[in-house]
Amino acid sequence: MTLEELQKQIAVHKWDAYVVTRGNMFIGQDVLPEENQVKALSGFSGSAGTLFVMPDKAWLLTDGRYELQAAAETDSEKISVVVTSDSLGSWLQKKFASPLKIAYDPWCHSIGETEFWNRTLKKHQFIEDNERLLGCRLSSAQPEIFELDAEYAGVTAEEKISYFCEFLRNNDLTAYFIGESDVVSWLLNLRSNALPDTPVLRAFALINKDGEVSLFTSDVNKIEAELAAYKGKSIGLSANATPKKIQTLMKNHKIWISHLQNPAQKWKSVKNPVELKGFEHAHQRDGIALCRFLQWLENRPNGQSELSIVSKLKEFRARDPLFRGNSFETIAGVGANGAVVHYQPTARSNRPLTDGTVLLLDSGAQYCDGTTDVTRTIALGQAPQEMIDSYTQVLKAHIAAASAYFPTTTPGSAIDTLARAQLWRFGKDYNHGTGHGVGHYLNVHEAPVSLSRRGTAQLEANQVTSIEPGYYKTGEYGIRIENLYYVTTGDENLPQMLKFAPLTLVPLDKRLINKYLLTAQEIRWIDDYHRLVCSTLAPQLEQEVRIWLEQACAPL
Amino acid sequence: MTLEELQKQIAVHKWDAYVVTRGNMFIGQDVLPEENQVKALSGFSGSAGTLFVMPDKAWLLTDGRYELQAAAETDSEKISVVVTSDSLGSWLQKKFASPLKIAYDPWCHSIGETEFWNRTLKKHQFIEDNERLLGCRLSSAQPEIFELDAEYAGVTAEEKISYFCEFLRNNDLTAYFIGESDVVSWLLNLRSNALPDTPVLRAFALINKDGEVSLFTSDVNKIEAELAAYKGKSIGLSANATPKKIQTLMKNHKIWISHLQNPAQKWKSVKNPVELKGFEHAHQRDGIALCRFLQWLENRPNGQSELSIVSKLKEFRARDPLFRGNSFETIAGVGANGAVVHYQPTARSNRPLTDGTVLLLDSGAQYCDGTTDVTRTIALGQAPQEMIDSYTQVLKAHIAAASAYFPTTTPGSAIDTLARAQLWRFGKDYNHGTGHGVGHYLNVHEAPVSLSRRGTAQLEANQVTSIEPGYYKTGEYGIRIENLYYVTTGDENLPQMLKFAPLTLVPLDKRLINKYLLTAQEIRWIDDYHRLVCSTLAPQLEQEVRIWLEQACAPL
Repeated sequence: MTLEELQKQIAVHKWDAYVVTRGNMFIGQDVLPEENQVKALSGFSGSAGTLFVMPDKAWLLTDGRYELQAAAETDSEKISVVVTSDSLGSWLQKKFASPLKIAYDPWCHSIGETEFWNRTLKKHQFIEDNERLLGCRLSSAQPEIFELDAEYAGVTAEEKISYFCEFLRNNDLTAYFIGESDVVSWLLNLRSNALPDTPVLRAFALINKDGEVSLFTSDVNKIEAELAAYKGKSIGLSANATPKKIQTLMKNHKIWISHLQNPAQKWKSVKNPVELKGFEHAHQRDGIALCRFLQWLENRPNGQSELSIVSKLKEFRARDPLFRGNSFETIAGVGANGAVVHYQPTARSNRPLTDGTVLLLDSGAQYCDGTTDVTRTIALGQAPQEMIDSYTQVLKAHIAAASAYFPTTTPGSAIDTLARAQLWRFGKDYNHGTGHGVGHYLNVHEAPVSLSRRGTAQLEANQVTSIEPGYYKTGEYGIRIENLYYVTTGDENLPQMLKFAPLTLVPLDKRLINKYLLTAQEIRWIDDYHRLVCSTLAPQLEQEVRIWLEQACAPL
Repeated sequence: MTLEELQKQIAVHKWDAYVVTRGNMFIGQDVLPEENQVKALSGFSGSAGTLFVMPDKAWLLTDGRYELQAAAETDSEKISVVVTSDSLGSWLQKKFASPLKIAYDPWCHSIGETEFWNRTLKKHQFIEDNERLLGCRLSSAQPEIFELDAEYAGVTAEEKISYFCEFLRNNDLTAYFIGESDVVSWLLNLRSNALPDTPVLRAFALINKDGEVSLFTSDVNKIEAELAAYKGKSIGLSANATPKKIQTLMKNHKIWISHLQNPAQKWKSVKNPVELKGFEHAHQRDGIALCRFLQWLENRPNGQSELSIVSKLKEFRARDPLFRGNSFETIAGVGANGAVVHYQPTARSNRPLTDGTVLLLDSGAQYCDGTTDVTRTIALGQAPQEMIDSYTQVLKAHIAAASAYFPTTTPGSAIDTLARAQLWRFGKDYNHGTGHGVGHYLNVHEAPVSLSRRGTAQLEANQVTSIEPGYYKTGEYGIRIENLYYVTTGDENLPQMLKFAPLTLVPLDKRLINKYLLTAQEIRWIDDYHRLVCSTLAPQLEQEVRIWLEQACAPL
């Protein structure tokens, strides 16, 4: 369907407007380019955009990152680009004084979102488009589904299901509708190749007290048929992860809906010993690939560019038999490109590797035994002193978070503050979170762990998180230093406190460190980290790279 | 009324229970001992207690601080003491399976609290006791009301009222009902002597678009008469500061109620230049009194005790002509008494000043031009090394918060984290907030500023806050180091960042500082602070005290 066709349909249905998001019914999960209806209707391909379409006008709401891209990709005659940090709801409230009838696809918006609309935008009427004018927004390609071996998963699906049954009994529920497809993947030890970077199985599941699990992938009619059997019973769900349509179906079938956060979100975030061991092994192999790459980069042949090194890095990683692909599109930004937070090089933006600046390289891989995500900022030739000082300040922020001790009730937001406060001293900050949870051979960004201003979830032992403060000087350069860590207890001196233990094993670029900005404690942290990297990886490296690593990891 | 009489009345009214809090209709404000119905009915005099009375039983809910005191002051035959961190609502939910009819005085509970009950405790029925069985809970003594001179207040009541009128216009309100009596006091530049430590005028106010203000003190009937004139109009109020009864009256008179946070809460927290200058002057004079006291204490005659030094300190402060009284009951705890967070010495608990431990002394004063609140932990003789180390760790926490730079959107919780993280490194923490807002010749604890885990209000220039991390070793000693600061901008290097500027001018006890636990930056902070204290106060001190101060403030 084209934008014009949709506009005609809006008029035919006597609606005033239609809301289009880029997602499908698997709320919060990635989509394939061909599934993205915002792109199909407007041309805009960015990762954050909502279309608000009226019969004679249309607006594309996006955030500051995409201001230029949105303008370039859309037709300004037909679509007004609105750059805002407001939610759709807040924008609607400010924009339209008179009441509107607004249609939306009830499979593509969560219960929580539509309840928020109804609560805050009382004057407007929100109407379910049950015809699904824009189709089901799922690729017709049939993805391959495969099981994750117990050797990697650590705990069987049966055992995980039994935890869930206990939860249902304790909460007097007959069943639970799992809207989070990464939870479904974790629970059943299933994965798929539907998405390029994330092996998530895109599916809902209904699990009942008897431990019976029904899996729903693309055939939504099966869902209603299954729910019908639960008339008069209580089913739990989490409102922010479950499509509005599920609520409507349950109401139609007189099911009692209990809004209860999905407990498996947290179970999934606390890695079991096998998963954790897998993470460690994956990070050792990933570190070896990175060291080979970095040694190659230091002696690189002329004529390399952002795009060419992205391929080269993938080559090094792909040598590993457990490598299954990147965990997200690699970010490689030279100079000013590094200052664009979610930059990914394209043929058009591609820059050569030139001396006298820095390269920001943020990449990760999916291995059967774990997922990696690492950012290194690398000197190209001799970097100016100002970049060295900024790098050192970001490193101080990284160390402040990574070396913290904290009690068990600490929310992620506290760690975010510890990192940022180091940059605040220099009048600097960064416009993204300090860290995110990481799935085990699943989403590289995984709820509920969040080291950010809004990170309310309390950290627990054996959760995996990134720590990745940064600094971005528009038009000049970007710096980010990212490691993955797991939360651990049991420091001999402070057994009751939690701390972070490093998973990522890749040297920091000492050419960018101004030692005189560091405290003795910070220098000790860096030297200790480098000692760990070197002692773990050096024995597994060929001589040339080993010599490079030993130098890269020598004490400051 | 006795507990037995109340129990009879509950049965007569065919209720199942009655909730009694220690407060009156001025929600969140202090009460006089004779107004405290929890004390009248149960004997319990602590500052946190709720009675839940049934015809044949009664429970006193209080927190861990008061476990021993509650048991000692109440009759266990009649009253079960429940030590809990739960709210009344959570306790009710866990305790009673069957539905209850629970009566309460609708003047003594906020709209927010009763709405929370109704939302979360759906099975129980909450009934307004409009007879007010326990009376109006206001002392019959007629307090003196007086105006705060413009010389101290800085801004006239007329000007403040004009801000409020603009707020009413912008929000399409006919009037606003101000339930927060400290806001009323600030708005009208009025104070009173109703309470011993806080010069707040206990009053509600109704302010309308024409700038007319009606003041309501004890005569609640006047409120209804006045509200009746607003039939069909919109009145704003803040649900957490306004008695439930006001909502009922407004509903009866068909007034549209708009729940809108009182904007003057924030206006009050951002001090004007005259208030800020007053704070500075008050702190200089308070510092002089403290220096005289500390010099006297160092050479104290034998036989001093917690109680005797509390009087002595007040004597030193009372020499100032603008002194109007303490801003709260002085906390003076020797050794183990210092570990009791809200300890105040009584004839029974009073300890002599003995050597080999520390004294925790938390005190403050009300002056016409400002309010003070300062805690010093003081060595008595030679303190053990462990206490010195703990003191130094608490000092590191204090400095981490006090020396922070932070952007304008920073919530108080971020500063709380910066302080605590220093103690977490040593496996320590403290079970109270890191700081609170302070009123100008008003409440020494003033909303909305809060440096605590739950401190969501963003800090702004010219707000005043305490910073007061601590460490308490039960049965041994307590340490707290508290200064007041105002938030300021305009550091020459970082003009866009906020930071704290000290108001409190009292030396820190260097005998308790282990220099080897401090960084160079921390030592510089202490030396800079002492230089400021000495250069400001020394010229105003008599020779004997000046010599003491110069030594106390010499660089580490």
